[in-house]
Amino acid sequence: MTAEYLVEIDLDKPAHGQEGVHNRWHPDIPAYKTIKQHKSYKIECFDWTGGQVANNDSADDIKYCDLTKIHYLSGPFAVEDCQAGDVLVVRIQDVQPLERSPWGYCGIFAKENGGGFLDKHYPKAAKAVFEFDGIYCSSRHIPGVRFPGIPHPGIIGTAPSPTVLEEWNKREGTLVSSHPDADFVMANLPTAKGTFAGSHATAGVQSVVEKCGARTIPGRPENGGNCDIKALTKGSTVYLPCNVDGGMLSVGDLHFSQGDGEISFCGAIEMAGCITLEVSVLKGGIAKLDMRSPMYLPSPVEPSFGSNRYLTFEGFSVDESGKQLCLDTTVAYRQTCLRVIEYLRRFGYNDYQIYLLLSSAPIQGHIAGIVDVPNSCTTIGLPLDIFDFDISPEAAVASHDRGNCAFANDDLKEGFPVHSELPNFLLDSLNSK
Amino acid sequence: MTAEYLVEIDLDKPAHGQEGVHNRWHPDIPAYKTIKQHKSYKIECFDWTGGQVANNDSADDIKYCDLTKIHYLSGPFAVEDCQAGDVLVVRIQDVQPLERSPWGYCGIFAKENGGGFLDKHYPKAAKAVFEFDGIYCSSRHIPGVRFPGIPHPGIIGTAPSPTVLEEWNKREGTLVSSHPDADFVMANLPTAKGTFAGSHATAGVQSVVEKCGARTIPGRPENGGNCDIKALTKGSTVYLPCNVDGGMLSVGDLHFSQGDGEISFCGAIEMAGCITLEVSVLKGGIAKLDMRSPMYLPSPVEPSFGSNRYLTFEGFSVDESGKQLCLDTTVAYRQTCLRVIEYLRRFGYNDYQIYLLLSSAPIQGHIAGIVDVPNSCTTIGLPLDIFDFDISPEAAVASHDRGNCAFANDDLKEGFPVHSELPNFLLDSLNSK
Amino acid sequence: MTAEYLVEIDLDKPAHGQEGVHNRWHPDIPAYKTIKQHKSYKIECFDWTGGQVANNDSADDIKYCDLTKIHYLSGPFAVEDCQAGDVLVVRIQDVQPLERSPWGYCGIFAKENGGGFLDKHYPKAAKAVFEFDGIYCSSRHIPGVRFPGIPHPGIIGTAPSPTVLEEWNKREGTLVSSHPDADFVMANLPTAKGTFAGSHATAGVQSVVEKCGARTIPGRPENGGNCDIKALTKGSTVYLPCNVDGGMLSVGDLHFSQGDGEISFCGAIEMAGCITLEVSVLKGGIAKLDMRSPMYLPSPVEPSFGSNRYLTFEGFSVDESGKQLCLDTTVAYRQTCLRVIEYLRRFGYNDYQIYLLLSSAPIQGHIAGIVDVPNSCTTIGLPLDIFDFDISPEAAVASHDRGNCAFANDDLKEGFPVHSELPNFLLDSLNSK
Amino acid sequence: MTAEYLVEIDLDKPAHGQEGVHNRWHPDIPAYKTIKQHKSYKIECFDWTGGQVANNDSADDIKYCDLTKIHYLSGPFAVEDCQAGDVLVVRIQDVQPLERSPWGYCGIFAKENGGGFLDKHYPKAAKAVFEFDGIYCSSRHIPGVRFPGIPHPGIIGTAPSPTVLEEWNKREGTLVSSHPDADFVMANLPTAKGTFAGSHATAGVQSVVEKCGARTIPGRPENGGNCDIKALTKGSTVYLPCNVDGGMLSVGDLHFSQGDGEISFCGAIEMAGCITLEVSVLKGGIAKLDMRSPMYLPSPVEPSFGSNRYLTFEGFSVDESGKQLCLDTTVAYRQTCLRVIEYLRRFGYNDYQIYLLLSSAPIQGHIAGIVDVPNSCTTIGLPLDIFDFDISPEAAVASHDRGNCAFANDDLKEGFPVHSELPNFLLDSLNSK
Repeated sequence: MTAEYLVEIDLDKPAHGQEGVHNRWHPDIPAYKTIKQHKSYKIECFDWTGGQVANNDSADDIKYCDLTKIHYLSGPFAVEDCQAGDVLVVRIQDVQPLERSPWGYCGIFAKENGGGFLDKHYPKAAKAVFEFDGIYCSSRHIPGVRFPGIPHPGIIGTAPSPTVLEEWNKREGTLVSSHPDADFVMANLPTAKGTFAGSHATAGVQSVVEKCGARTIPGRPENGGNCDIKALTKGSTVYLPCNVDGGMLSVGDLHFSQGDGEISFCGAIEMAGCITLEVSVLKGGIAKLDMRSPMYLPSPVEPSFGSNRYLTFEGFSVDESGKQLCLDTTVAYRQTCLRVIEYLRRFGYNDYQIYLLLSSAPIQGHIAGIVDVPNSCTTIGLPLDIFDFDISPEAAVASHDRGNCAFANDDLKEGFPVHSELPNFLLDSLNSK
Repeated sequence: MTAEYLVEIDLDKPAHGQEGVHNRWHPDIPAYKTIKQHKSYKIECFDWTGGQVANNDSADDIKYCDLTKIHYLSGPFAVEDCQAGDVLVVRIQDVQPLERSPWGYCGIFAKENGGGFLDKHYPKAAKAVFEFDGIYCSSRHIPGVRFPGIPHPGIIGTAPSPTVLEEWNKREGTLVSSHPDADFVMANLPTAKGTFAGSHATAGVQSVVEKCGARTIPGRPENGGNCDIKALTKGSTVYLPCNVDGGMLSVGDLHFSQGDGEISFCGAIEMAGCITLEVSVLKGGIAKLDMRSPMYLPSPVEPSFGSNRYLTFEGFSVDESGKQLCLDTTVAYRQTCLRVIEYLRRFGYNDYQIYLLLSSAPIQGHIAGIVDVPNSCTTIGLPLDIFDFDISPEAAVASHDRGNCAFANDDLKEGFPVHSELPNFLLDSLNSK
Repeated sequence: MTAEYLVEIDLDKPAHGQEGVHNRWHPDIPAYKTIKQHKSYKIECFDWTGGQVANNDSADDIKYCDLTKIHYLSGPFAVEDCQAGDVLVVRIQDVQPLERSPWGYCGIFAKENGGGFLDKHYPKAAKAVFEFDGIYCSSRHIPGVRFPGIPHPGIIGTAPSPTVLEEWNKREGTLVSSHPDADFVMANLPTAKGTFAGSHATAGVQSVVEKCGARTIPGRPENGGNCDIKALTKGSTVYLPCNVDGGMLSVGDLHFSQGDGEISFCGAIEMAGCITLEVSVLKGGIAKLDMRSPMYLPSPVEPSFGSNRYLTFEGFSVDESGKQLCLDTTVAYRQTCLRVIEYLRRFGYNDYQIYLLLSSAPIQGHIAGIVDVPNSCTTIGLPLDIFDFDISPEAAVASHDRGNCAFANDDLKEGFPVHSELPNFLLDSLNSK
Repeated sequence: MTAEYLVEIDLDKPAHGQEGVHNRWHPDIPAYKTIKQHKSYKIECFDWTGGQVANNDSADDIKYCDLTKIHYLSGPFAVEDCQAGDVLVVRIQDVQPLERSPWGYCGIFAKENGGGFLDKHYPKAAKAVFEFDGIYCSSRHIPGVRFPGIPHPGIIGTAPSPTVLEEWNKREGTLVSSHPDADFVMANLPTAKGTFAGSHATAGVQSVVEKCGARTIPGRPENGGNCDIKALTKGSTVYLPCNVDGGMLSVGDLHFSQGDGEISFCGAIEMAGCITLEVSVLKGGIAKLDMRSPMYLPSPVEPSFGSNRYLTFEGFSVDESGKQLCLDTTVAYRQTCLRVIEYLRRFGYNDYQIYLLLSSAPIQGHIAGIVDVPNSCTTIGLPLDIFDFDISPEAAVASHDRGNCAFANDDLKEGFPVHSELPNFLLDSLNSK
């Protein structure tokens, strides 16, 4: 009756090489196990980096993280009586941190290694470690904040068919090749470095996957994958298209919490953990539902702070320089993030702390208006009740020491962060370190 | 004790020329009335077009709507003891349809006159009329659907200062001039045609406003305006920056309901109505809050269908042709809309009906992931409970006649809609008209 | 298309004698009008007393209220194609105050005239007048509090059949006759005084109804009636058993807001108002559903403060004297009320103000445990966010003048309220009046 | 950083005698451990019976359960720097089933041993076993139902002082002695049989506790205890009065889920499990808050099915025989329970199954009206979405085999359940066993 464990991981050894994990999408990666429909299973998962990040007060591990290795996923699992064209119905029955590892982290990647949504403003690496007390988390790096998690898998997806894989590599390759002068990585193409096709893969498969295995970084319509949807928390049901027989489900990149957008890229509270799930199959579901990308039913058990307990900020498609963009919703959302940062500064947090908070706390990011040329408008709802002090516009602001997040040692030596990035009153404490 | 009416409108006469309304943003438009802080007022508002659209079964009025006239706003109102640099705190205490006009409409503008978010797919004009039964609405043009409204003003904003106005006209003008070959209207620049500077404006002011009065179509960070935020419903509080003394509040474009994005442009359920509000002033608020765009607290009284009663669709920044875009959230949201349309077709609705429904029903549009290059991922939550039949993926689909929305007479004569736009089983009924 | 008005009331004339109202339950009361299924109607209703209470600062009108006249209901309405044995499905589409009368009141009845749930503790009459600002209300008699309403009919019901009526009069008469020494009114039996059988009743009917028309004070399983269920707000659907052909629906006793229990008897915010509703009929529903009392589906649009924004108090079936009762849930709920009063005192309110607040604000009253002999346990959730200051247990308490509610002039002359009922620091201001 | 375990239980041995558990309230029971403020701890707890009930298909263990032994609580824990007069603030950070025991049970006790809220109607023992799949549970004994849990401790409380204990024994003794002819157990007085004063208790303490240790069955205002409040789920904060130095916190009787009232007495889904909590102390809190019974803040993470997804039933204080009671809320709630049972029968469940379901599923039990003499009105909201079929009043009812719950072997031999208790169509299958 107890749910069977499909994967159990060893946190004391490298993820690379362990049983039941892999880090690329490819139809040739063999099933690690076959699972039955209508039966609960437990699956342990590494944090997305496979254990590269430690519970300490330096962001060195973030700064020098090897991104060719991510994400270490658990699986793939072949589902009995599942064929290409079916839809896999995955009930996410629970997502928990590992009891032996009750912490997670949120990171800001350096602009030159990974970057993030606001990397032009905040190019340096930073980190906040969160500790889990039951359903709540808090961070010594962002004092004054505590909130319940919405544990979910950042990645859940099925294997691509050869055709789908070819399409991915072609369209993402075209994007890169048609922007030869891009000053950032527009897409991560297949790379042999860091590739792990799973412990059950033959040398031949490993070699093929090194050559053309799709990276796990983007979510994709054909198989789901790294969608980073915070609503996929315990209690939700996700419908995934199956491109190959067996479906070949993989899951990982567990998050204890995340805000809409996962804005700092390593923006959720990343953790090793365990997901409990049950699958069933909707035969011929892709055609029946005319399904071209996944869909889901959220959980009935989401944290709710009350609709009017979200202080909500608006952002528009006018960029930081005052340039007008036409219905550019990405720019609008970036502006919305910046509005929150500007607002929270006065309570004593520095920009990097707020950027981490925006990424990890359960903020609600909505499309507001997307038709009133030339301005897209997006909003971010910030829950008032995650703070242990009053952040409302009418609140009196007392001067408080809000500590600091972790930075990389090299950056601190270079005198970072400098004035333009941190409010004056924070510089003294930092510089005196 | 009864709230004083600031504006009462005559629905039997043209909006153009009536007391207390205007349709441009300009610092010279004189205050229609001065209002006190901490006192409730009622303000009647025309629908955004000033009465150009009728409760009938033809979309001719949508197709030939004069967009130079929109939006007819009520105001401006000068607030006592309010100065430039303050923040206006507006408590939206109620928004109601007019008892003498208990209906509204949702329109799809033709691609060549207004357009909308999906105008490349659905270039023709269409319309659905909704009737209001208390807090609920339903439409003879989209049978099988009924939902409670979230009445809100599409537009609420303050007057620009001369400097702000100049900035608007410059940045939007630059957008247009730098895209000489755009195949759609990227921004609506000042135009004398249709301009109404208000009944209290002198000929001189009217002339100035005709020349450089900002159009009301886009929302803008400096004054709010047409943000089309459905959360600004009765019970919410909005914080608006004041650019001029008195603040000069205007409000209009009332919606009975709207989905996130207002995707068909005339996408809300547009109505004439009455807003009840109270204002107060946060002195020096712009500097104090470092406010660069409006913020708000949503209402404690929003319709709630239960978190797991939203069937939710995912969309990615891969466009209709399969082209990969890099973190283009606008494209991702368009894909998400298309996924809903494809899904709902099988229940018997045609695409135009679904497009109207997506625009007007309280769908939840979220940013999901915005950092996993190259794919942005956005989601749309569609409430299951607005349908009087089961639309879940597991539901058996019975063949039903779902009627039709209104189209323009000329389009119907031309044989529209044709096969590519409507499922086969709908064509017969249409063609036999 | 506009909903037809079934009843329009004249607030400037006595309710007694007006068209479309009555104040007893009896099968002979003739239908005021016949209504169609699936059609929206508007029905104006007097406040429950028919206008006996004024918007002023004295509780004289509460103290001397003529309770033989209550409740003035609008109706009865015969429903087309409805027969005894059917179930009436009433969709409550809206409930609003009258725009011409935007206020209501909450009263505490004197122990000797009406009483209330805590009348042994608070035997004197008191009153708080609330003014409505859109969906919100506030009272000059309970400063510091503001909340959105949940407008609903305290009474909605169908006519009894002769058999049902006979049963009522018998069982309630037995209760009274078997407690000859009761020190309070255990049930209000038929009385000629104050009876109004409706403007369409013949003298003969009036005479019959005077003799045996059931009073409207209790709700009853057979027809619903005065259930004072705050969940029956706009957007809800109620299923009522039909005991006679036509169903004979009556409605009234509109409340702008109410807490669970309506504890002070006149405990809601009583108002004149207008209800919009639509009915349909479930044929043979009583047998089909085995229905022995009404049921309902609440509205999707209820105020929500967030589940953890209710400070919740526990009460047990140990009475004020320390006496142990066995599973007496009524005593447990009374204790829970007292716990809230004791708690809120320290913020400067007097007991009568809190008693009024408990009655009128949207408190949540739950059965917690009802099987752990000998203690029933009930809870009251008090929304934190209706106060404009912090009432949490950790809050610092500042001394504030919270004003006072209205009392009766005679009581104030007699030196009431005295020390045992009001905290010391409130006595000075009162005594100095 | 990992939370320290205060108690770890051995499910393979009798609870009686294990370290860190006890089953009476008494000031002399020594602290098992001393805990620090602001630190997270994990505490394993037996199910309330200490393991007397098995995961099987017979209710023999329920029928013959030894009730003198209950409840086995974990503790007591002395809190550092806590004194009599303080208030203990307990943050319930998590409540989970034990991974090694992923099931629970709901029982109906026989009328002659324990009984329950409806024992006059349903006097026989019955049982349903629930299995846990992550946050969801389902029972082979009540097919067609599945819902997320709201795990909580049925009991959390502090030790009584000698004075408080004396008061309890006196008032409960008086209740019993003044009802010599009661046909049921009105209160459970101290009894030596089954008493366990904890592994750290001396023989002298054990002897004293046997003589006058208060039973754990009722919750009590002075210390909380067995309040069976489903809102005390993970994420909630409870404020408990301290009657002795150290507070002496005990906790147990963990429930995976429960409906308001826990109506069948063993009505929750009883389980062994683990609670994670953190305490702090509000110095002098009893006087400061004028606290006479516990209070709490519910969790922000409660299951929410949407306000209009609860089919809600009304019950009144007219008893089963038609007798009118005066404001008897206990009778009203019993009627409400019966209304749900009558309603659900037609979907194929028998009364015992529904009684079990009402007890264990997250039904919402509200006080509606408690002042309209002579009728109290209470309501029960039944979530529509816990059923995998449509139970709405408009639903077509298909005949389904809903299986059966477990009964005691002796009862089945005697031909139970008989006609009056089970609908006809269920009798055949039962009798043919």
